[in-house]
Amino acid sequence: MELDIKKEVAAVAAELKNNYDTQRLFDISNGDRIPNRSEIIALIDDLFRVTFPGYYGRENLSVVSKEHFAGNEVAVIYEKIRKQIKIAVSYDEEVKECKHMNDTASELALRFIRRIPYVQDMVMKDVAAEFDGDPAAKNKEDIILSYPGIYAILVYRYAHELYEMEVPYIPRIMTEHAHSKTGIDINPGARIGEYFCIDHGTGIVIGETTEIGNHVKIYQGVTLGALSTRKGQELSGVKRHPTIEDNVVIYANTTILGGETVVGENSVVAGNTFVTTSIPANTKVASTQPQLEIRQSKEI
Amino acid sequence: MELDIKKEVAAVAAELKNNYDTQRLFDISNGDRIPNRSEIIALIDDLFRVTFPGYYGRENLSVVSKEHFAGNEVAVIYEKIRKQIKIAVSYDEEVKECKHMNDTASELALRFIRRIPYVQDMVMKDVAAEFDGDPAAKNKEDIILSYPGIYAILVYRYAHELYEMEVPYIPRIMTEHAHSKTGIDINPGARIGEYFCIDHGTGIVIGETTEIGNHVKIYQGVTLGALSTRKGQELSGVKRHPTIEDNVVIYANTTILGGETVVGENSVVAGNTFVTTSIPANTKVASTQPQLEIRQSKEI
Amino acid sequence: MELDIKKEVAAVAAELKNNYDTQRLFDISNGDRIPNRSEIIALIDDLFRVTFPGYYGRENLSVVSKEHFAGNEVAVIYEKIRKQIKIAVSYDEEVKECKHMNDTASELALRFIRRIPYVQDMVMKDVAAEFDGDPAAKNKEDIILSYPGIYAILVYRYAHELYEMEVPYIPRIMTEHAHSKTGIDINPGARIGEYFCIDHGTGIVIGETTEIGNHVKIYQGVTLGALSTRKGQELSGVKRHPTIEDNVVIYANTTILGGETVVGENSVVAGNTFVTTSIPANTKVASTQPQLEIRQSKEI
Repeated sequence: MELDIKKEVAAVAAELKNNYDTQRLFDISNGDRIPNRSEIIALIDDLFRVTFPGYYGRENLSVVSKEHFAGNEVAVIYEKIRKQIKIAVSYDEEVKECKHMNDTASELALRFIRRIPYVQDMVMKDVAAEFDGDPAAKNKEDIILSYPGIYAILVYRYAHELYEMEVPYIPRIMTEHAHSKTGIDINPGARIGEYFCIDHGTGIVIGETTEIGNHVKIYQGVTLGALSTRKGQELSGVKRHPTIEDNVVIYANTTILGGETVVGENSVVAGNTFVTTSIPANTKVASTQPQLEIRQSKEI
Repeated sequence: MELDIKKEVAAVAAELKNNYDTQRLFDISNGDRIPNRSEIIALIDDLFRVTFPGYYGRENLSVVSKEHFAGNEVAVIYEKIRKQIKIAVSYDEEVKECKHMNDTASELALRFIRRIPYVQDMVMKDVAAEFDGDPAAKNKEDIILSYPGIYAILVYRYAHELYEMEVPYIPRIMTEHAHSKTGIDINPGARIGEYFCIDHGTGIVIGETTEIGNHVKIYQGVTLGALSTRKGQELSGVKRHPTIEDNVVIYANTTILGGETVVGENSVVAGNTFVTTSIPANTKVASTQPQLEIRQSKEI
Repeated sequence: MELDIKKEVAAVAAELKNNYDTQRLFDISNGDRIPNRSEIIALIDDLFRVTFPGYYGRENLSVVSKEHFAGNEVAVIYEKIRKQIKIAVSYDEEVKECKHMNDTASELALRFIRRIPYVQDMVMKDVAAEFDGDPAAKNKEDIILSYPGIYAILVYRYAHELYEMEVPYIPRIMTEHAHSKTGIDINPGARIGEYFCIDHGTGIVIGETTEIGNHVKIYQGVTLGALSTRKGQELSGVKRHPTIEDNVVIYANTTILGGETVVGENSVVAGNTFVTTSIPANTKVASTQPQLEIRQSKEI
């Protein structure tokens, strides 16, 4: 038997090698040729830590000054993101057989770290919005320590910075990691204003060309999506997701579709509503509730 | 370039330090000032292990007696929870500038470990309910090893014990960790009877003031929520989520809202139903199905 | 106090020991008696790596030949799965007090590794379908690195191979791990054709007896479920989930229920639709949209 197994393993290996040879996707000639998921996930931890020091429990700010802590973290982030940007851009240019970035990885990494204080400000506003909107929140610390919405928004806001610089691969790896942890799927291309509040969050989908104003609140299961994607790659770059103006609330499990669909400012969209046309400002919108049928049940 | 980067990093660090200085949230003068997420997550693993020994694969009960195993685990849990309760209560009293707990951390931790056998009994009943209700379950071991519903319920039941003792932060960190792993969001404040069964589970939301009787079964995507939370913090403490009586089944993606909404015992609520009024006992409830429009399609 | 705690811990331990004694589930006389979740999860990583070498960032194919890499990985997988199959089958036969497998663990493990190249081919087709169908996908590498749909399908396809061999416990542990990471719940018993595409994915439930043809696309929140499971274990083995034929698209948050429900080939089911009857081929299906009620809002 022992010999048979060796032969069997070799036969399977030969088949796999054949697959590797015939698919460009498997031409991984060295370990640093495509971005490294684990290192990008570690970077997300660094970004969380520098944004909310102390909340991951691994910092001890009693023995280090705030400035030294911040300086060290930012330097680490710079090095990590520079390395991954370099790999991502090189691989992408190799695949596309053309140079598409004018800036070097160092320049892009520098632009990225300069945005950290801005993103921190934005996320602090998101925490404030979350606290003001949720009666179950005991205080802001609760939100930073526990709330999936804040985690998803933080990761999205940093990923969006990289998306705007046209860095390939990395933004989506970041937001899909947050999606995996929270069930909240925000495409890094979406544009989201300040004081954004997500409640519960599981099942939320916010598409790539969505635009969201300030002070918007969204509940679990809300989809801001495209009307149809049957044309697939032909639609790449086209605005296909809705626009949500300032001060809008969208309750749970509502679906809003289409690139020309606008929900006007100050409007409230009820739960379980299906919207494919624009909604005026200052209105309340709900589907006509289907009648409830209530029958006496004998079999139970 | 090297020098520039050092200057750039220092500039970003100075901005961040400034943010840290101006926000109370960042006054983390030492590492043990706020509860430690990683240690609380490790505690959840301990609680799972003592409840279901052997199912995580790290125990070897052939070389240790059951009593020694249990004694050691309980002692470890006592120490861990005592430490985190102490930090949580101290920080909360500091923030609120008043003392609000009469019991010491040691007393609370003791009350908690005394409840472990009770919670274990309850979770064993949940496993039985899960097995009886799911034709895809091959046996009870399958359920303990794999089912997200059991994981979420176990974590909720332990977190609820801490919630009842008014321990801050920790209950929500626990249930949000389970939410992250399972997509099932049970607020630790909810009250849930015995033989509770969750099928599939992703997208379930059970709000803070929900009350659920015995032998209740709930499917994926069910929300037991509040009618409106626009008043935010003003609503803190008010009953805003529904009451579900004994022997109720709620099928997938149904939404039931409101603190005065009661679903009477033995009733069945169909899937995709939107309920904002009370339902009598012993009934079957469904939305009137919207007509299906079926059109011949030429373009496909 | 110190002494009291020791007594208290001992009292809790005695209660737990009592529970362990009275429940068969806790008779874990040695560490290898039930399948090991951590080792099965590590196996999933191995399967991902051998299917998509380089994408986890831990391989360096510049210093090892493709064939050596594949051979080593396959040998490791063989050993790991053989060990877990042996434990799973032994425990199951002990519980059921009868021998139900004719093949040995070695034979089953061999059958499993022989299927790896086939599963790899299938998953490559799933990647192609994902790319063709999603305008937000920048390229196929993006999909392998980030998309939860591909992760869930890959794990399902390997788990299904074990399900077909009637290996207990392991298939469900595998798919529930993917469910935990992606929010996509595919029962390992489902039968799914080639070029399967999942978009976003959170909240998808695909039941045990579902059959899905080729070139099918499914969006987030879609349930392919059973009409009622009130009969619980009596329904075990009965076809209770729908059949979806070739080239069908099912948009977000739609529910299709029942073992006799067939969605005919080339049909499109709109979002938020509730289907419990069969749909003819070549049609477009949607619920009649409930009217939207739009009211001017003064209070906001």
